[in-house]
Amino acid sequence: MARNAHPEVTRTRILDAAQRLFMAQGYEHTSIQDIVDELGDLSKGAIYHHFKSKEAILEELTNRDNNMQDDFNESVMNRTDLTALEKFRVLWRHSMTKQDHVQIMRAAMPMLSDPVSFAANMQVWSKHLPERFLPLIEAGVKDGSIPTEYPREAAELLSLLPNYWLMPYFYPVTLPEMEHRIRCLATMLDAIGVPIFDDELITVAAKGMMTFAGEPEKGSE
Amino acid sequence: MARNAHPEVTRTRILDAAQRLFMAQGYEHTSIQDIVDELGDLSKGAIYHHFKSKEAILEELTNRDNNMQDDFNESVMNRTDLTALEKFRVLWRHSMTKQDHVQIMRAAMPMLSDPVSFAANMQVWSKHLPERFLPLIEAGVKDGSIPTEYPREAAELLSLLPNYWLMPYFYPVTLPEMEHRIRCLATMLDAIGVPIFDDELITVAAKGMMTFAGEPEKGSE
Repeated sequence: MARNAHPEVTRTRILDAAQRLFMAQGYEHTSIQDIVDELGDLSKGAIYHHFKSKEAILEELTNRDNNMQDDFNESVMNRTDLTALEKFRVLWRHSMTKQDHVQIMRAAMPMLSDPVSFAANMQVWSKHLPERFLPLIEAGVKDGSIPTEYPREAAELLSLLPNYWLMPYFYPVTLPEMEHRIRCLATMLDAIGVPIFDDELITVAAKGMMTFAGEPEKGSE
Repeated sequence: MARNAHPEVTRTRILDAAQRLFMAQGYEHTSIQDIVDELGDLSKGAIYHHFKSKEAILEELTNRDNNMQDDFNESVMNRTDLTALEKFRVLWRHSMTKQDHVQIMRAAMPMLSDPVSFAANMQVWSKHLPERFLPLIEAGVKDGSIPTEYPREAAELLSLLPNYWLMPYFYPVTLPEMEHRIRCLATMLDAIGVPIFDDELITVAAKGMMTFAGEPEKGSE
């Protein structure tokens, strides 16, 4: 393939190749050389020209994924045919089944064995993500679909529990155990007026969360 | 006061003095020199002979506190006049109102701004503490006082949520907000058959947890 004069195109090709490899063989087992081989027409130097390290590629993939998630979220938020509760279900199902997203999150998982990354993630889950969930929960209180007295608490728990407590990376479980955990979470959320997890979503979520299962890999040095 | 020939006695005096100071003026604002001044008859060198740093003193205070908590726990576990649920309530109330314990935990809080300490604590709360709670929950299932289908999940959530989600160090709140959060937790736990937090314990717990409130201090270098 001819070398491309447009740096954005090359950047995207590197990202796409890296994503394919991270998904197929895992982030830890993919080297820059593998990306060179996968692309065929770019040197190691050309890749380093665009990204200073493999970590930087993963970071950019995560950003790209976040942007796609944001676009999807916005399109769901703008729908007028759904209650706030139904929007939550659509978003939840999407984030646990959309393969690109799940695979990139999975590739990024081993980073969490580094205490600094771990602490930064916990910050996101305890502070930033609840701020994003809260308006939707408040909309649900208004339209009657999420009849809770605990909107802030629900926003925090919907962020903390699925991202940390349900994550097999932190709490290793089997599929039936995962389903049992999500049923436990569903029962608790129902009790505070946040009935997001119905039987169908429980099944989908259990399978989705198990995508993250497996021995925690050691972070690279 | 005369110098004491028994190293254990000197050690204990240093620990007691440090504990008084940490409680009165905060761990971060207490220096080894303050401990020297508080004791009156020991040199800085004498203190460093027993503890290599202020951190080592706090660590030993935490160990001493853990041992006292363990002794108390054992005495409660051995009682035959209480159901498992009642035992939980006694332990919970104790751990949130016993001033020595609360103050030492509070002194140790700023350590959590260090990612390595934070990650280590999260490990304790996700792995070790649930293992200690589980037998008591299982005893409650047996004696009928904790009629839950989710003993393992409850053990994990009783460890994670009070130690992390209810901790104003991580989620800053006012007293009424704290009481609202604990009522939220109580409602969720009731729904999965773990009715530990009754109205009385909610009030006690809210006041107890607020002892940890305040601006997170920066960890010392």
